[in-house]
Amino acid sequence: MQKLEKQMVLKDPIYGYIHIDDVLIKKLIDSSLFQRLRRIRQLSGVQMVFHGAEHSRFSHSLGVYELAYRFSEVKAIKAALDERTKLLFFAAALLHDIGHGAYSHAFEDVFGVHHEEIGARMIVERPEIRNLLLDVDENFPKDVASIILKKGDFPLIEQLISSQLDIDRLDYLERDAFFTGTSYGHIDLDRILRVTDIKDGKVVFHVQGIHAIENYLVSRYHMYWQVYYHPVSRAYETILEKIYLRVKDLCLQSFDFKTDVSALKGIINNPNDLEHYLRLDDFYFNGLISSFTTSDDDILRTLANDFLNRVIWKYIDDVPENETTIEDIKKRYGNQAKYFTSHRSVANFAYQDDTIHFGEEIMILLKDGKISTLKEQSHLIQGLVITGIKQDPKFFYRKQ
Amino acid sequence: MQKLEKQMVLKDPIYGYIHIDDVLIKKLIDSSLFQRLRRIRQLSGVQMVFHGAEHSRFSHSLGVYELAYRFSEVKAIKAALDERTKLLFFAAALLHDIGHGAYSHAFEDVFGVHHEEIGARMIVERPEIRNLLLDVDENFPKDVASIILKKGDFPLIEQLISSQLDIDRLDYLERDAFFTGTSYGHIDLDRILRVTDIKDGKVVFHVQGIHAIENYLVSRYHMYWQVYYHPVSRAYETILEKIYLRVKDLCLQSFDFKTDVSALKGIINNPNDLEHYLRLDDFYFNGLISSFTTSDDDILRTLANDFLNRVIWKYIDDVPENETTIEDIKKRYGNQAKYFTSHRSVANFAYQDDTIHFGEEIMILLKDGKISTLKEQSHLIQGLVITGIKQDPKFFYRKQ
Amino acid sequence: MQKLEKQMVLKDPIYGYIHIDDVLIKKLIDSSLFQRLRRIRQLSGVQMVFHGAEHSRFSHSLGVYELAYRFSEVKAIKAALDERTKLLFFAAALLHDIGHGAYSHAFEDVFGVHHEEIGARMIVERPEIRNLLLDVDENFPKDVASIILKKGDFPLIEQLISSQLDIDRLDYLERDAFFTGTSYGHIDLDRILRVTDIKDGKVVFHVQGIHAIENYLVSRYHMYWQVYYHPVSRAYETILEKIYLRVKDLCLQSFDFKTDVSALKGIINNPNDLEHYLRLDDFYFNGLISSFTTSDDDILRTLANDFLNRVIWKYIDDVPENETTIEDIKKRYGNQAKYFTSHRSVANFAYQDDTIHFGEEIMILLKDGKISTLKEQSHLIQGLVITGIKQDPKFFYRKQ
Amino acid sequence: MQKLEKQMVLKDPIYGYIHIDDVLIKKLIDSSLFQRLRRIRQLSGVQMVFHGAEHSRFSHSLGVYELAYRFSEVKAIKAALDERTKLLFFAAALLHDIGHGAYSHAFEDVFGVHHEEIGARMIVERPEIRNLLLDVDENFPKDVASIILKKGDFPLIEQLISSQLDIDRLDYLERDAFFTGTSYGHIDLDRILRVTDIKDGKVVFHVQGIHAIENYLVSRYHMYWQVYYHPVSRAYETILEKIYLRVKDLCLQSFDFKTDVSALKGIINNPNDLEHYLRLDDFYFNGLISSFTTSDDDILRTLANDFLNRVIWKYIDDVPENETTIEDIKKRYGNQAKYFTSHRSVANFAYQDDTIHFGEEIMILLKDGKISTLKEQSHLIQGLVITGIKQDPKFFYRKQ
Repeated sequence: MQKLEKQMVLKDPIYGYIHIDDVLIKKLIDSSLFQRLRRIRQLSGVQMVFHGAEHSRFSHSLGVYELAYRFSEVKAIKAALDERTKLLFFAAALLHDIGHGAYSHAFEDVFGVHHEEIGARMIVERPEIRNLLLDVDENFPKDVASIILKKGDFPLIEQLISSQLDIDRLDYLERDAFFTGTSYGHIDLDRILRVTDIKDGKVVFHVQGIHAIENYLVSRYHMYWQVYYHPVSRAYETILEKIYLRVKDLCLQSFDFKTDVSALKGIINNPNDLEHYLRLDDFYFNGLISSFTTSDDDILRTLANDFLNRVIWKYIDDVPENETTIEDIKKRYGNQAKYFTSHRSVANFAYQDDTIHFGEEIMILLKDGKISTLKEQSHLIQGLVITGIKQDPKFFYRKQ
Repeated sequence: MQKLEKQMVLKDPIYGYIHIDDVLIKKLIDSSLFQRLRRIRQLSGVQMVFHGAEHSRFSHSLGVYELAYRFSEVKAIKAALDERTKLLFFAAALLHDIGHGAYSHAFEDVFGVHHEEIGARMIVERPEIRNLLLDVDENFPKDVASIILKKGDFPLIEQLISSQLDIDRLDYLERDAFFTGTSYGHIDLDRILRVTDIKDGKVVFHVQGIHAIENYLVSRYHMYWQVYYHPVSRAYETILEKIYLRVKDLCLQSFDFKTDVSALKGIINNPNDLEHYLRLDDFYFNGLISSFTTSDDDILRTLANDFLNRVIWKYIDDVPENETTIEDIKKRYGNQAKYFTSHRSVANFAYQDDTIHFGEEIMILLKDGKISTLKEQSHLIQGLVITGIKQDPKFFYRKQ
Repeated sequence: MQKLEKQMVLKDPIYGYIHIDDVLIKKLIDSSLFQRLRRIRQLSGVQMVFHGAEHSRFSHSLGVYELAYRFSEVKAIKAALDERTKLLFFAAALLHDIGHGAYSHAFEDVFGVHHEEIGARMIVERPEIRNLLLDVDENFPKDVASIILKKGDFPLIEQLISSQLDIDRLDYLERDAFFTGTSYGHIDLDRILRVTDIKDGKVVFHVQGIHAIENYLVSRYHMYWQVYYHPVSRAYETILEKIYLRVKDLCLQSFDFKTDVSALKGIINNPNDLEHYLRLDDFYFNGLISSFTTSDDDILRTLANDFLNRVIWKYIDDVPENETTIEDIKKRYGNQAKYFTSHRSVANFAYQDDTIHFGEEIMILLKDGKISTLKEQSHLIQGLVITGIKQDPKFFYRKQ
Repeated sequence: MQKLEKQMVLKDPIYGYIHIDDVLIKKLIDSSLFQRLRRIRQLSGVQMVFHGAEHSRFSHSLGVYELAYRFSEVKAIKAALDERTKLLFFAAALLHDIGHGAYSHAFEDVFGVHHEEIGARMIVERPEIRNLLLDVDENFPKDVASIILKKGDFPLIEQLISSQLDIDRLDYLERDAFFTGTSYGHIDLDRILRVTDIKDGKVVFHVQGIHAIENYLVSRYHMYWQVYYHPVSRAYETILEKIYLRVKDLCLQSFDFKTDVSALKGIINNPNDLEHYLRLDDFYFNGLISSFTTSDDDILRTLANDFLNRVIWKYIDDVPENETTIEDIKKRYGNQAKYFTSHRSVANFAYQDDTIHFGEEIMILLKDGKISTLKEQSHLIQGLVITGIKQDPKFFYRKQ
């Protein structure tokens, strides 16, 4: 594993510095595929409510890498990872979001693609990254992709990168809290690092750190409900989804957009078309929305104007007692209702508040060496689990 | 209400500044009775575990006053308070802990005094403060004392100073978190201020602020279990209580302490003796403990040495399965067991985590103008209420 | 001055909240011209070095408005501003950067436009904003524009918005420090607010606050040299300028760009063309650079690839002893040297570190009521003034 | 060097955690001589102005130790220190203030003792610490003492612990800023750690870190003038000194204090009397002051009351034009003037702002491997050096 002559650091507002020792990591960061993440914001609708949240997937990805770096220094993890596996961990952490495009969640729903699959393909197919990884050894690209696809080949690393308490969430909760300006997302990372251990090949947390983990879960709960599920954010994401939907339908009707939508068309024709997918950054898609504001298609023009001019859609609770109202609104829109109304429970959105499971999946190492679950050990979490998943089904619609 | 010519400010690490507009408040702060609070630390046993927590009741009292100042600017509260009542609020906030002595909670348990009652008497009896308050009007001392004793004469102010969500707790949670260095106690004060309102003469909180209140309660939960109820802190407080107990017993036996314990004797003879009580600050009591390390009484000497030389007592869970062990330990100490062993559930300590009630007593103002309780409105708090009070009964003992 | 029924707040990571009381301010924020600032990043080259610095002129503009709001509460300023002038102050603070386009500083150098002039024209000419301002009174648009052009009609407000110690700098230093993650830019705003006063119609600062002002100036000094003048940032800005230069030259040669450069052409033909100027946000210009990477023009293609693929240009000190080296490099590029080499002292860049003046222009109010200058009163600043302006002339060039 | 089985950590509000790996360090912290530092506040007069500054030399000493721990991880320092020398570094860092007593600076002036000498003697003479150090090897106590006395035996460690940029100052500036609540003292420790190196056996700083060092020096400048040299702090320290002076004079007159002043008497009789010196903590001395408020000696009683009841002494600039006024005041006090008036330039106080030297003593490692001084390399520091030492001679006096 080739090392840099001198450790490189990047200044980061969350961690102070991002530390880079490996030539591979430096080269991956410098690759155009990774730099492309600078052009994809981390939070789509949220930034319309929290104006500070203009950060990109680029800085989040660096953050997840830095957390991999720090977790790799935890005694038990250090012992469990040989040099190659550690580098695999770093590369997978850095590249875990490489397959994201503009406003991915809405895009994925409409176009039926998955950013993990695309990311995995970028890693094994695109020469720029593939060749960098091949410099380590011939299986390296495949192994990084395997982790991103959670195939189970490297269970420890998969657990560290993606589970109920993982470096992906640790970074985005802290980072999103920082940029939105909310005071809820703060996590005691140092404490969590100190109580992390490995038992029977799995990540566990010493019982002494249970308060830090409870605090992480409550912060997460608050970030979801206060920030990610903010109804106005969700209203914006609804418009975005409708724009994608209309574009897709118009493409199928061979509509003349009078602007270059070849990248989107390419994906409709062939969802496996990586070349076109790579053009789908915020710059491209925002440029399209901007040009759609003068489209000949009434629906597309209306949606684009709503998005750019902050025409925030209305919403009511999607509950039985509102059924008549909802039906009336839909009727008013007739066959255009699919473009101007939307039933959306929070499950439609990016983030899942899997309250019901989180107590079970986080493993606690007791003082006597036995393993228990967070749910068993935490008074606070038991309460959350008992009350179960909070739901917030809403019906969003454009006010006529 | 006489105003200062120019607003005075004191630099505070929590709020930036403490703001003082009133001549009365300035004079109260300068009084020797209030300055005495500089000599009484806020946290007794806790500072032995969290070395940063060396702050005094003086800075906490200033903090509670500053919060009164800020809450008095909330629109609804501003409207509800005339100038006299506002000053009453400020004075009561500032003086709410004036009756504390050294290591009060242990002291109060042993000597059967109550700091609120002593504080109320200081206010109406001691000329230094009494005369300052009389300058406002003849009922002012009595009214300040009434608030401190929660007699119900000024229900709004009592609720603001002492309830499930009050300026006393808001300050100490934030301040203690700051000085101990824990990341759990942070509270979104600005948000809470923004959602505070008055309805039917009572403090209520707009439903939009529910996340800030949930967060406050979870912070409080964590501060209690992580900081205030830390077993090592509790072990230190146990030793302190035993010292008080032994001193009391020796006084009753007319033991010759060979040091000046007149203040303590004075209180044993007459618990209403304010003059002696006022000498019981940390300086005095720490000086005594220091001199007790060479006492002729074996028990007192042992306890004093344990306290000063960090001989941390042992503890085990005070549960049926440990009954035999506990009895054995007690037997070993024979008739000295009362000085070297202690059954202590957290309820013996200063802070009560009244989980079971907090959801009911915090009133939430819904968007339709109706009033509900936090428990009704908060998914998170329901869980906490359902799981009920966490107990932690422990048996503390000196290792022979 | 029409007020909102209920104060509106926006969460801000720097100030906690942005407070809005006026209907006009809310409408201005919602206008598409102001929302356009979301699409123009605050720092151009800097974000390539400090990845956290992805914030836009939108959030900076809100920040400057919030500072206007806070300064308007300073006793002396409150007394000096009638309701109309206060609203003028707020509107001018909010709109002071409305005329910015993508990568403005490089753009302005090449195309000879000035964002203040464009901003002033947007305010008086574009119906969207003009009509909102006319709702106040018929002179309102003209007066806001006058302040932005610093015509001297409202000297106090001009001084507050733009001087050696003004709300523009106070916000950007603090905000840029926050997002870059540097620890140098922190300013004691509360202290500065407390010592701000007005004397003879001018903003002055009480001598008690001199340390806060020294600290502000030193923070500014460090932000300039550590962040804004970072050589790698300057290298990126050099490439940007060269792209603009090449595009301009190609336009004049009627080159076929095979992409839509009509907005840029429009401005070359008529620098007064506001309609085209408004399209020049980051989305537009980044889209262009992206398409230039496949341009038929070798120079443009090379520059665009350098920018997007992080080919960082080299630099050496632009000093006499390097003259031969510099001439050699230029010779190698022949008649393309104007596109691939650049003499740039920091004065070419956005920020001016007018060290030599700042001590003179900040007025200090002494305890005896006399007015002095910061330079006279500050030991620390005298040193800075004596050593004079730090220069850093560099020669940037593309490595062949 | 015996290691703990498991790393021990203490929660610290500045660094998050204090990390302890060595058995020796744990035992030293637990020793009663080190625990004694809990009873000696870090800042004497300052806490009367900044109420948050109630922290002790105990937490400062832990902080200096933690910085030693962190600097020992710097690559070049790690390479330069063998295990024994590293432990020597840690022990000396932890114990560097062990010789302090209550209000040391005033005390040392009056009684002619030096805390470094006393500290060194505690280390080599007192069995409690001496024996712990002897467990390492027979020269260990002597070597730790040598570092504290700056004898030059371990120049690198001496430079790290005590120079113009050392771990003692780094900790107290940051810690005092934190507890006072000032925003000036913040230091970019991570940056300083990253640029620290060793060249020719001396600590040097890479030129890339020059901004962090400038910032440290300016923070220091501001902390001195804003906090340590605050005139009201200095007024309090003046009273303290006068109390010590009067006590000393009364002791020499065999005055009957009617309270136990044996410890002070012991030191007057024999400045080498360590046993008595150890009793001189804040508890002891504050207890004395408290009892002096009822002394039969008018002067002592007056001084003690001034101190406890916040009778802040007056001060005027000690400059030629005030000479007559000053003489008049002194005359009024007659032969008591030595107790009620004081000429004090800041040099009388604990902290020396050796502006004139700091630019010369901090060594900068240039990119070409040459060594220069900070003064040569820093534009900002040159200015400070040119303007020279700021003086602030004042005449303090009790108002009659």
